[in-house]
Amino acid sequence: MTANPKPTTAARGRPAKGLRSGRDSLLGAATAAFADLGFDSADLRSIAAAAGVSQNLIRVHFGTKAALWDACLDAIIAVSTPATEQIAALSRNASRPVFERLREAIGRAADFYAAHPEARDFITRHTLEAPERSDRLTELLLRPAYEAIRPMLEEAVARGVIHSGHPAIIFALINNAVSPPASFPALIQQIAPEIDGTQAHKRMVETFAATLLREPAATAYGVEH
Amino acid sequence: MTANPKPTTAARGRPAKGLRSGRDSLLGAATAAFADLGFDSADLRSIAAAAGVSQNLIRVHFGTKAALWDACLDAIIAVSTPATEQIAALSRNASRPVFERLREAIGRAADFYAAHPEARDFITRHTLEAPERSDRLTELLLRPAYEAIRPMLEEAVARGVIHSGHPAIIFALINNAVSPPASFPALIQQIAPEIDGTQAHKRMVETFAATLLREPAATAYGVEH
Repeated sequence: MTANPKPTTAARGRPAKGLRSGRDSLLGAATAAFADLGFDSADLRSIAAAAGVSQNLIRVHFGTKAALWDACLDAIIAVSTPATEQIAALSRNASRPVFERLREAIGRAADFYAAHPEARDFITRHTLEAPERSDRLTELLLRPAYEAIRPMLEEAVARGVIHSGHPAIIFALINNAVSPPASFPALIQQIAPEIDGTQAHKRMVETFAATLLREPAATAYGVEH
Repeated sequence: MTANPKPTTAARGRPAKGLRSGRDSLLGAATAAFADLGFDSADLRSIAAAAGVSQNLIRVHFGTKAALWDACLDAIIAVSTPATEQIAALSRNASRPVFERLREAIGRAADFYAAHPEARDFITRHTLEAPERSDRLTELLLRPAYEAIRPMLEEAVARGVIHSGHPAIIFALINNAVSPPASFPALIQQIAPEIDGTQAHKRMVETFAATLLREPAATAYGVEH
């Protein structure tokens, strides 16, 4: 089973194929291990085995375990940047009602987490890591996401679209609500079997947005805007 | 340092003191280990060491690792029952507006998690456990909590105090919002230094309740009620 550890997802026909696919496999396995066990308990031997490569490759590609964790974070930042930029663009688009733009931003953040469960679990886990890693993730990933959505949150509170609250607290509530763990559908189905599990995440996000955001009366908004 | 492992919190002057304090120490250490590492990765040797007792005592008191996990869950159910019963009593008290009763129930749930961080982390972690444990926790702990608050959630949606949503989804949103991880104050302070970290959890819960619940106009409520 492990005789040919080459991942089937490797890019075809590239000169550095072996190296590249080994590096990517290690990043994937390391992200999963750090997300599940935390930095201290994740071990490099198991990560290499899960990636189907020699443990020696970790040193070749990344150096230390700490540098491997940083590389996982960098990869997550890279995949999350388009979503963050879209949310920042919604913040700048004053031509549309903030109610609509925020609902769209919440959906975009939820779509990101749903499409990247390994990133979601790594980000969720960071709250349990030592400050040198936890602070780094907050600074490089969560702070830019907060700054991207913050103007909309401030406008929403000023207009009564969100009842009240500091934008950082509201950001934390949003981030929390749109990134439920993989087991969330099973939990919901167990306490409410009438809910379709495949729709649980979508319904959670819709319910959250519908309860957080208060649609202003169309005429009142027109006047205000 | 480990010559006298007797916990200082042991009840004084009871005949079974040594046994009792050993069992309680093991439960505390096991709850922390299962919460941090998950069932599979937590190891009995480290749990016994953290409890300051012989590993042999785990077998004496609990039998297997699975039975130890079940005993941790039983202990958490025992400390959570008063909060669940108070919330159920709020559900039955039709003489007060549901807006007030729900706000109080959310505060009560938040107080429980703040007072029992080890229970909070164990419950949060359960979503990553195998179904034989995850389903058990949901059935014995989360389902009773859901049933306790459900009548209020249904009434709140019917009255427009909560905009919309299935009560199980709203329950999940509430449970999520009132149980942020221990690092939450540090995260908030990093992105918003103007917020007092010691107030972060309180402000999160207040903001969540204020955004979720829509206060009906006093007169309208009087008519409806």
